[in-house]
Amino acid sequence: MERMKSRFDTFRQKVNIIIYGTNTAYGRLFDLVLLGVIVVSVIIVMLETVKGFDQKYHIELLVLEWIITIFFTIEYILRIISIKKPIRYIFSFYGIIDLLATLPMYFSLFFAGASVLSVLRAVRLLRLFKILKHPKFSNQSSHLHQALIASKGKILIFMYFMLVSSVIIGSLMYVVEGSQGAFTSIPVSIYWTIVTLTTVGYGDISPATPLGQSIASIVMIMGYGIIAVPTGIVSAEFASFNFKKSIPERVNPCPNCGVDGHEFNAKYCNNCGEAL
Amino acid sequence: MERMKSRFDTFRQKVNIIIYGTNTAYGRLFDLVLLGVIVVSVIIVMLETVKGFDQKYHIELLVLEWIITIFFTIEYILRIISIKKPIRYIFSFYGIIDLLATLPMYFSLFFAGASVLSVLRAVRLLRLFKILKHPKFSNQSSHLHQALIASKGKILIFMYFMLVSSVIIGSLMYVVEGSQGAFTSIPVSIYWTIVTLTTVGYGDISPATPLGQSIASIVMIMGYGIIAVPTGIVSAEFASFNFKKSIPERVNPCPNCGVDGHEFNAKYCNNCGEAL
Amino acid sequence: MERMKSRFDTFRQKVNIIIYGTNTAYGRLFDLVLLGVIVVSVIIVMLETVKGFDQKYHIELLVLEWIITIFFTIEYILRIISIKKPIRYIFSFYGIIDLLATLPMYFSLFFAGASVLSVLRAVRLLRLFKILKHPKFSNQSSHLHQALIASKGKILIFMYFMLVSSVIIGSLMYVVEGSQGAFTSIPVSIYWTIVTLTTVGYGDISPATPLGQSIASIVMIMGYGIIAVPTGIVSAEFASFNFKKSIPERVNPCPNCGVDGHEFNAKYCNNCGEAL
Amino acid sequence: MERMKSRFDTFRQKVNIIIYGTNTAYGRLFDLVLLGVIVVSVIIVMLETVKGFDQKYHIELLVLEWIITIFFTIEYILRIISIKKPIRYIFSFYGIIDLLATLPMYFSLFFAGASVLSVLRAVRLLRLFKILKHPKFSNQSSHLHQALIASKGKILIFMYFMLVSSVIIGSLMYVVEGSQGAFTSIPVSIYWTIVTLTTVGYGDISPATPLGQSIASIVMIMGYGIIAVPTGIVSAEFASFNFKKSIPERVNPCPNCGVDGHEFNAKYCNNCGEAL
Repeated sequence: MERMKSRFDTFRQKVNIIIYGTNTAYGRLFDLVLLGVIVVSVIIVMLETVKGFDQKYHIELLVLEWIITIFFTIEYILRIISIKKPIRYIFSFYGIIDLLATLPMYFSLFFAGASVLSVLRAVRLLRLFKILKHPKFSNQSSHLHQALIASKGKILIFMYFMLVSSVIIGSLMYVVEGSQGAFTSIPVSIYWTIVTLTTVGYGDISPATPLGQSIASIVMIMGYGIIAVPTGIVSAEFASFNFKKSIPERVNPCPNCGVDGHEFNAKYCNNCGEAL
Repeated sequence: MERMKSRFDTFRQKVNIIIYGTNTAYGRLFDLVLLGVIVVSVIIVMLETVKGFDQKYHIELLVLEWIITIFFTIEYILRIISIKKPIRYIFSFYGIIDLLATLPMYFSLFFAGASVLSVLRAVRLLRLFKILKHPKFSNQSSHLHQALIASKGKILIFMYFMLVSSVIIGSLMYVVEGSQGAFTSIPVSIYWTIVTLTTVGYGDISPATPLGQSIASIVMIMGYGIIAVPTGIVSAEFASFNFKKSIPERVNPCPNCGVDGHEFNAKYCNNCGEAL
Repeated sequence: MERMKSRFDTFRQKVNIIIYGTNTAYGRLFDLVLLGVIVVSVIIVMLETVKGFDQKYHIELLVLEWIITIFFTIEYILRIISIKKPIRYIFSFYGIIDLLATLPMYFSLFFAGASVLSVLRAVRLLRLFKILKHPKFSNQSSHLHQALIASKGKILIFMYFMLVSSVIIGSLMYVVEGSQGAFTSIPVSIYWTIVTLTTVGYGDISPATPLGQSIASIVMIMGYGIIAVPTGIVSAEFASFNFKKSIPERVNPCPNCGVDGHEFNAKYCNNCGEAL
Repeated sequence: MERMKSRFDTFRQKVNIIIYGTNTAYGRLFDLVLLGVIVVSVIIVMLETVKGFDQKYHIELLVLEWIITIFFTIEYILRIISIKKPIRYIFSFYGIIDLLATLPMYFSLFFAGASVLSVLRAVRLLRLFKILKHPKFSNQSSHLHQALIASKGKILIFMYFMLVSSVIIGSLMYVVEGSQGAFTSIPVSIYWTIVTLTTVGYGDISPATPLGQSIASIVMIMGYGIIAVPTGIVSAEFASFNFKKSIPERVNPCPNCGVDGHEFNAKYCNNCGEAL
């Protein structure tokens, strides 16, 4: 009994290293296989929604779905067994996603149509973002990340401004175009305003009256100018990162007080006056 | 009588602090409640324009509208009573908006359909922009504001250029496409040109003749290049702000050797070692 | 006779100063009036193309058209009389435009329908660009102009790249989508490619086959990335203009050799070694 | 016999210089003629796909096609004969393209309809990119090239992020909009997401339910913010190139005082006055 427990512990440890670790060859291989299976599972769910394809290969797709579901189920159980605090994993973001990815197929045994929920599996694609933490990409993606973090405050203010503008312009267009045309309600008008301000312009709703078209023209030119704002914010952040890199290397720290970061051509320490 | 007047004065003063002030706890609470009520009032106006929803909950929406109208009316009266120069407030931008937000419901008692005007209430959303002056955001939003102010001249010239181009291109397309197709008049052609130059592209009007499509292609590539101009202007402004921030503030020149441009927190001249 | 000629010369001189000059009060007034009449003439031509409006106010519009035509005719004759080298003006760009703006109405006396050509008058709007040379705007607009000139080479290469790409992608889409669908010919496919690459997206032509939609998706993401190129070019030019302005003012020229533009903290002239 | 071989060798050498060389007058002329013929051949293929035009000038177009095909065939044979390692050319990228450009017409002799493949000729347009290596443009285009190379890593990560987001959002929209509407399958929903995120917005597919429109609004605002990322990356690269150019090249440090960072054309040290 004792020996069996010890064996189980060794097994748990090994599984833990393979599933959660990324330093060993097996750990990395597992990550790759898992990502591969996730991608395949999402492609299968996609193909099932394509009518013609599903009718032709219904059985094959179903069999593949079950294979993947069982693979995901085993992975989920191993994740719970091998971790020290299983409760923490189960209620974590990825834990819930992993569970939601396996359940739909089991439900479909009892409720016809529950397999529609297997679309939820697409959320497992979020694991694909973990690749960006890989050392190969981490430098570039952390650079991107930092620039976005630095611009966050300005971008939020900008979005707030855009949302309030959309409500005001949307209400105005509802009154101008009248409820007879395509602008059937204020929420729809706001939807149109966002479609227009972002220069998407589906054309499912478009102004028909001369006054509406004039206001729309102003909104478009505004949107065209406004796009400069987030772009400018992010550009400037990237540029200042690049700029910092391009400033010449500073000389050694002061030999007296140890203060670092003197100007390039300083002769005396600007903190204690010691000659450098 | 005298005492009553004195009481009224104390009341006015208290109300003034709550309504106009932002330093006391009550003042801040009032601002928050007011913004909340404005948002709710706009949502109600929105829902009233959604046909299905309005038919189902007509009574509930009407009751809520009246509650909000009375709240706004009391707020408006208090604003007038508690301020020293009520005339100035009444004819100020926000004063007129506040009045316009209360009137429609009272009009609707006498004229059926006047409640349509309650859409005007959306303009009160402009008060939401006041949040941007809050200390929490003021740093970021003043940064945004300054960059926009600095680019204003160039952006106005750019818009002038775009407007004149739109009229010329619009007239050209009217002649090329002929009045038989979707380009029924020059104003409509100009509307199409703006839709195209800003890359919105609804598709409600699109060229049908080969020559028209060729000109449209050129206009699109122009528009694509032109978008670089406002973006470039604003980007450069943001970048120069960031750049200025990245250069430390300079103190006065060294009293001994007169060298200028020391770092912000330098204590000794980096040229001669003299204490600053 | 001699006296009459001298009078005529004085008259010519005065007219020249008013029409071509911009320094006297009358000269500036004439420019303003001319621009005003051009704007009015273009608005009239616009309104004539709006069916409902033209039927109602046909006579009024016609009278106004004739008044403006006569004004333009007098202006044209005065321009020829008052200038020293009339031939040069007549065959200059603006000379031809000014002539084309007057002729259509006279033609319409002989050929019904020739008044359609009065659309040509819109080209006179190009004179509105002359405003940008006004001292009030010239600083900002010359800044814009210089940045565009500096980016010209790169933008031309970029447009060449885009044109060739459009032809290749357009041909590919023609083959993929087949001539049965909306992609009826290669020129139309190229038109679609430009509409898509520039993110205009009318939707008058859109891919219907899965393969076509996949290629379209790639083209869109390409277009989305490509827009960064002209924007980046122009942004960088603006930024480097701003940057140059932000470099600290340089000290006076060298007292010995007169060379200018030394570094901020230089002690000796870097051209002749003289102490600064 | 020997003499004939020697003559053939001289011929091969001459042809090689003309076809592959760019230094002689004939070499440059040949390049120009070839590019001209490629452009003409692509225009002919284009016109053939325009129904009305093809019916009218079928014979003329066919004759021109044969002339060009024979020209391309001779060019292809000369390329093989005159090069030292013909195998290498035949299986190179341009070798295969050159072959594919000649074959379709010969096939059309045996199989009706094979001339459709002459669309492949458009790929020869890729040769037009070779112009960018011409000394006249090489400076500007290498600048463009370097900025794109420098941003490659970040742009790839960005595209990866966008692709994964598109799949997740597309799946979500499929569930929300239901398969009844325009969102018939997940691949179509993903196509819609890309159309929306890139702000193209055809409008062939657009959300009809209020919830779908709300999600679409969020996707659009996201897309609007996201466009800032590639633009910012590329702008910053261009800006740092310009910045580096604006800092003059530094010569070696001063031999007397060792101060570094002198201006490019400095003759004397700006710190101690020593000749550099």
